[in-house]
Amino acid sequence: MKFRARVEVQLRPGIADPEGATIERALPALGFDGVAHVRAGRSFSFEVDAPDESAARTRAAELADRLLANPVIEQSTLELEVL
Amino acid sequence: MKFRARVEVQLRPGIADPEGATIERALPALGFDGVAHVRAGRSFSFEVDAPDESAARTRAAELADRLLANPVIEQSTLELEVL
Repeated sequence: MKFRARVEVQLRPGIADPEGATIERALPALGFDGVAHVRAGRSFSFEVDAPDESAARTRAAELADRLLANPVIEQSTLELEVL
Repeated sequence: MKFRARVEVQLRPGIADPEGATIERALPALGFDGVAHVRAGRSFSFEVDAPDESAARTRAAELADRLLANPVIEQSTLELEVL
C-alpha cells in the first residue's frame, strides 16, 4: 500500500525563532495589524510504500525524527493518508 | 476573536525541488527504502485577531500570498482554528 506522509517541523516552544520574529516585526509597516506569535518552520511531504498503515506510520515517524527534524530543538508532527 | 492560522508553502508541481531531491537520494544509504516523491516546503503559524472567521481567513490568506509565498513558483494552503 502507498501512503502520503506530511511532516511539519517546528521549533520547540521557548526556542528563539529569528525568522518568525523578523516577519512579525515587518507586518505593521506592511498593513497587517492584529497578527502575533508568528513561528516559522519547515514542511515535507513524501510517499511511503508499506504493508499497512501502522508500518507506514512507524517508518515515516522514524524518518522525520532522524533526518528531517533536530529533536534537540525541533518537534515534528506527522499526518498520513492512504493513496 | 482570535484564530490560529497554519500556512504551508510548497513549490508548485513541476517546479524543481533540489532539497527534496537531495533528501530522496540520501534515503537508501540511510536504510529507508520505499520512500519516494519527497518535496520540501516551509510552514508558518501565527495568531490573527479578527471580528469573525471570514475576516480572519481573508487576512491570513492575503498575508500568506503576499509575504510568505512567492505565487510564481509556490502555492500555499491555509488552516484556521478558533482559539
